[in-house]
Amino acid sequence: MSTTLTDRYPTRLPEPGPRVPRHDPVVWGDPADGPLSPGECTGFADRGHHHAPEPLFGPHEVDVLRQEAARLRTDPALRADERTVVEEASQEVRSVFEVHRVSPAFARLAADPRLAGVARQLLGSEVYVHQSRVNYKPGFTGGPFYWHSDFETWHAEDGMPRPRALSVSIALTENFPYNGSLLIIPGSHRTFVPCVGRTPPGHHRTSLRTHSPTVGMPDQDAVRELAEEAGGIDQFTGPPGSATFFDSNCMHGSNGNITPYPRSNIFLVYSSVENTLGPPYAAPAPRPSYIASRDFTPVGEAR
Amino acid sequence: MSTTLTDRYPTRLPEPGPRVPRHDPVVWGDPADGPLSPGECTGFADRGHHHAPEPLFGPHEVDVLRQEAARLRTDPALRADERTVVEEASQEVRSVFEVHRVSPAFARLAADPRLAGVARQLLGSEVYVHQSRVNYKPGFTGGPFYWHSDFETWHAEDGMPRPRALSVSIALTENFPYNGSLLIIPGSHRTFVPCVGRTPPGHHRTSLRTHSPTVGMPDQDAVRELAEEAGGIDQFTGPPGSATFFDSNCMHGSNGNITPYPRSNIFLVYSSVENTLGPPYAAPAPRPSYIASRDFTPVGEAR
Repeated sequence: MSTTLTDRYPTRLPEPGPRVPRHDPVVWGDPADGPLSPGECTGFADRGHHHAPEPLFGPHEVDVLRQEAARLRTDPALRADERTVVEEASQEVRSVFEVHRVSPAFARLAADPRLAGVARQLLGSEVYVHQSRVNYKPGFTGGPFYWHSDFETWHAEDGMPRPRALSVSIALTENFPYNGSLLIIPGSHRTFVPCVGRTPPGHHRTSLRTHSPTVGMPDQDAVRELAEEAGGIDQFTGPPGSATFFDSNCMHGSNGNITPYPRSNIFLVYSSVENTLGPPYAAPAPRPSYIASRDFTPVGEAR
Repeated sequence: MSTTLTDRYPTRLPEPGPRVPRHDPVVWGDPADGPLSPGECTGFADRGHHHAPEPLFGPHEVDVLRQEAARLRTDPALRADERTVVEEASQEVRSVFEVHRVSPAFARLAADPRLAGVARQLLGSEVYVHQSRVNYKPGFTGGPFYWHSDFETWHAEDGMPRPRALSVSIALTENFPYNGSLLIIPGSHRTFVPCVGRTPPGHHRTSLRTHSPTVGMPDQDAVRELAEEAGGIDQFTGPPGSATFFDSNCMHGSNGNITPYPRSNIFLVYSSVENTLGPPYAAPAPRPSYIASRDFTPVGEAR
C-alpha cells in the first residue's frame, strides 16, 4: 500500500496556476486568552495584520536595540559572513540574518512576552523562531521590496507545511509614509498565489540581494486583483518602538526610499511548534539555517 | 570698456560649492489681488508650495484630461517623437512633453484662470508656458525621481535667468502616500544648491530617461541639511483633480511605485514674461524647444 501526499499549496509551477483559497485557520488560539483582545484577534483574522496602537517598546529599550543593530551592521566578522546581505547597487548593508542567535539583546527580544505572547496566542501553541533579521533601508538609495508572500517562499524553499506562522516588524527608526514603510494588501492572507518558475539551486544567494527576483514573485494580475478585492492597501507608519504583526501569507512589500531618513526595522518570524520544517516543497535543497532555522525549541518560558 | 556679467546662481561646478541664498523674491505680485488669499501667498513664500484644499478640477473635467492623456500616450506619431520619453527598464511611456502645443484640451488647461491666474499673481506679471508634460508613473514598475531643483536645470541648461517661475502638478489619478506622490522639502526654495559636474552635450537625452542622472543632482549632504533645517518633508496626496503649485527652486522628488495604482499627473511650468530664456548658463547648447519653450507669448487673456 502506498500513500500519496498532496501538496495543498503548490507553487513554482511551470505555468500560471489558479489562486488557492487558504486551507488553514488564521487565528489558532483562544481570543479570550490575551494578550490581544478578542476584537484585535478578529481584526487579525480579517485583515491579516495587527498594528499596536501605541509603541510596544519605550525609548530606552529602542536605544539599546538600535545600538545593537548598528554594532551588528559594522561588525567585520559578520560583514564577511553570509548572514549579512549587501545592497546590490550601493554595497550598503541591507539585512543581517539570525540576529537572535548572534546577539543576547535580540535573543531576549525574541522571547519578550509582548511579542512571543502574541505569537503563542495567535498560533495557538508554543512557538519557535523561524527567522530573524534586521533590515536597514538606507536613506537616498534604499531599494524596494517587491510584492510577495513570505509563506510562499518558506513553503517552497524551507519546507514549512502550513501558514501557521507570523512576522512582527519592530521600527528602529521612524517609519514615515515616504521612507519605504511596510505595505500590506489586507485580506490577501486568505488566498495562496502560486508563483511561476522552477527554483534554481542556491536561489537565496540572488533572491536576497536583488530587488526584482524572477522566481517566487506573484504575477501582476494576481496582485492587482487582490488589491481590487481589498479596496486598497494598508500602510504602516509609526515612531521607533512601534510594531506590526502580520500573517505569513500576507501579500506585502515596500517602496524604495529617496529620503534622507533611513528605515531600519527588526523582523522576527514565529512559527508554531506543530508547524516544523520538512524537506522543501519546491526547491532542490533547503536554505541555510541562518535563513530558516531547524532548531524548533520553544522560545521563552512556557505559559 | 567691457562689462562682466556675474552669474548669481553658479552651478555644474568642478567641485562642491557653497549653498547660495536666493537673491530673488518668491511672491512677486500683490497678495491682495487674488485668486490666492494673502494667507495662502504667505504660505507659498514660506514653504515654497500651495496645495489647494479642494480639487481644482471636477470629475468631468478630469475625465476629459485623462482621456486626452491616454490618447497622447498611445499616439503612434508621438511615440516615435522625441517628445515621448520611455522608461528605461520597462519601455513604458514615462512622460510626454509639450502637451499644451499638441493638444487643444491641454492648451485650454494651460490658459485656465484657476492655474494661470495663480501663476500671474505669484509671479507678478503676465506668464508664458516654459514647459508642459504628462507624467505616467505606471503601477508596479514606476521608478523614482531623485531630489532636484527644477530651476537649477532650467538655469544651467535652458538659460532661465531667475527663479521667477513655478510649476503646478495636477493629479489625473489618485495620489496616495504609497504610489510615488510628490515630496518637497519645505523652505528649500530659499537656497540654491550648486551641482557638481560639467553638462555633457545632449545631456537631456539621458537625464530624462534615467532615474539617477549624474549631472544636475545635488549631493546627499545638501539634501540632508535642507531636510534637517525644515524638520521634515511635505508629501502631496489627493484625489484626481487636485493641484499643487510649487516654486521653481523647491528641492523635490518622488519615490518609485510598486503598487498596482499608476500615478499620472500633468505638469505645467509658468515663467514670468520678464524672465525669458537666454543662452544656457552651464551647458554647451540650449535644450530643444519641446522641453524649454522659446515662445514667450503670454498665456490666456490679459487681466
